[in-house]
Amino acid sequence: MVIEGAALALQENPNLRFLLHGDEKQIIPLLKKHPSLECAAQLLHTPDAIKSDEKPSVALRQGRNSSMRLAINAAARGNSQGVVSAGNTGAYMAMAKIFLKMIDGIDRPAIVGSFPTLRKPCIMLDLGANVACDEKHLTQFAIMGKSYAQEILGVKKPSIGLLNVGEEEQKGNVAVQGAAQIFKKAKSTFNFYGFVEGDDIMKGTVDVIVTDGFTGNVALKTIEGVVHFIMTILKDVFKSSIFAKVGYLLSMHAFKKMATSINPKKHNGAMLIGLKGIAIKSHGGADAVAFASAIKTAAQFVSHDLNKKIEKNLEQLKKDLKK
Amino acid sequence: MVIEGAALALQENPNLRFLLHGDEKQIIPLLKKHPSLECAAQLLHTPDAIKSDEKPSVALRQGRNSSMRLAINAAARGNSQGVVSAGNTGAYMAMAKIFLKMIDGIDRPAIVGSFPTLRKPCIMLDLGANVACDEKHLTQFAIMGKSYAQEILGVKKPSIGLLNVGEEEQKGNVAVQGAAQIFKKAKSTFNFYGFVEGDDIMKGTVDVIVTDGFTGNVALKTIEGVVHFIMTILKDVFKSSIFAKVGYLLSMHAFKKMATSINPKKHNGAMLIGLKGIAIKSHGGADAVAFASAIKTAAQFVSHDLNKKIEKNLEQLKKDLKK
Repeated sequence: MVIEGAALALQENPNLRFLLHGDEKQIIPLLKKHPSLECAAQLLHTPDAIKSDEKPSVALRQGRNSSMRLAINAAARGNSQGVVSAGNTGAYMAMAKIFLKMIDGIDRPAIVGSFPTLRKPCIMLDLGANVACDEKHLTQFAIMGKSYAQEILGVKKPSIGLLNVGEEEQKGNVAVQGAAQIFKKAKSTFNFYGFVEGDDIMKGTVDVIVTDGFTGNVALKTIEGVVHFIMTILKDVFKSSIFAKVGYLLSMHAFKKMATSINPKKHNGAMLIGLKGIAIKSHGGADAVAFASAIKTAAQFVSHDLNKKIEKNLEQLKKDLKK
Repeated sequence: MVIEGAALALQENPNLRFLLHGDEKQIIPLLKKHPSLECAAQLLHTPDAIKSDEKPSVALRQGRNSSMRLAINAAARGNSQGVVSAGNTGAYMAMAKIFLKMIDGIDRPAIVGSFPTLRKPCIMLDLGANVACDEKHLTQFAIMGKSYAQEILGVKKPSIGLLNVGEEEQKGNVAVQGAAQIFKKAKSTFNFYGFVEGDDIMKGTVDVIVTDGFTGNVALKTIEGVVHFIMTILKDVFKSSIFAKVGYLLSMHAFKKMATSINPKKHNGAMLIGLKGIAIKSHGGADAVAFASAIKTAAQFVSHDLNKKIEKNLEQLKKDLKK
């Protein structure tokens, strides 16, 4: 699906060029089917690959010649402008952190993604990179989220919400309580809305939702689960009577459009934000269409200077907190 | 909506009797509209009420004559067999913990609820009572969840999953890692499935999902948010063309049935589990139908001896961990 996805992405954007890292025995036969991709791609052979259940520490030690590591190295050396992988998330993050390096002032990469809502898109982070976060990490996520909304979505003063179990001031754990104090103090840096709850994600209450990677990952996968649940039930509903069947046939076009708009695969390609380079993580279960969308995401980031915005916002935060 | 809800619940179950705590000036005119409820209810007047934004500590000190406190007292004294409230959750929990008292071996009440899934119902706890939990709390939640599935849902050996950011053994934070060790050790107490993810909630992968109250609350409200989002989009979809409109009219009956089955209001009435008495928390924004469903939930618990099951399972856990 990586090769098929690259071919699809190239069809849409003929300016793309690819460095393909992997086993030539597997890749060459696949490339033969896509002559234009063959022209636009350079194959860098390695038989080694990181297994999906490999521990990040083991991957770091033993994965020196793995396709993942070589792809990250290529980006670190400037041979490519970004990396896309559907492989082991933990290993990918660990390698990206060490070899692409962190932006000064950011401690850990976070996974950021964009969600469709009833209003404008909402971006949320961290979606699973960091299971334990304190107020300092949440503050860095807020800076990165704000920069993302400004640079990529073009929102001038993004509103920022902290995901919590209630909107009232006294609610929550130590980390969100501490972060809320910092967000309130840094008035010229943050357009802080306050605490938001799980149902605010798809209401579109704010532009950016900040949360720890444990809660964010559970929320992300819960959304995928509910979408799958409702779609499955709806299919049964439309089969439940002859009227419903005819009804489905008549509304099918509109219905499929809706299903596509909320299909998590169409939103594939979450960014590891906070790194000096561009690293995109595709869902492990992605098909060619979904992987092409991850490649498109990477290309989109190349045309923006997100990191410059992050550095600028970090500077402002420093000044703001000194006041 | 409390009086309307009680009247609805009584219509369905004429054996119910009510102690209504609150302001007679407000309640008497409403009761006049429901003669059969007037017969089945006793009004205990108090003008005091806990505000929705009152801090639990303040509610405890100053709320001695509040309707909430008096309703809990009545249950504690055996004048009623259970309490139902749609009021301030924090105050309700604090009062219930002190005046209804905890089951020996359980430190804190948890909020437990049942979710529709693609298979059998899944129960999950904690849904928001405890924002910070360690492995000991998660173990107590697992005991209570197991007992709930056995006693209320009739599942003999409920499978138990721990909500996490991945299924792999090394994933997660200190609390879920520690709890997983205990669940594995206590083999005769727990039918431990392993880690589950957000999308497993509505897949119905396990009978019981255990999580801390922060994550559980975000997951619960995220589900409500996605349901609301998809329903809103679907309504637009069905208006988008003349075909879709006719299609909706034909499939409306089946569609509404589906909407009802996933409507969070129909699942209103979460239990505060771990208390010696029965305390049901209704959603603050409940309407009469939803409040009636919370009353039905309370009545259902009266006919079961959930606490005996919890005590038995706690005993077994003790033996199991001594081995």
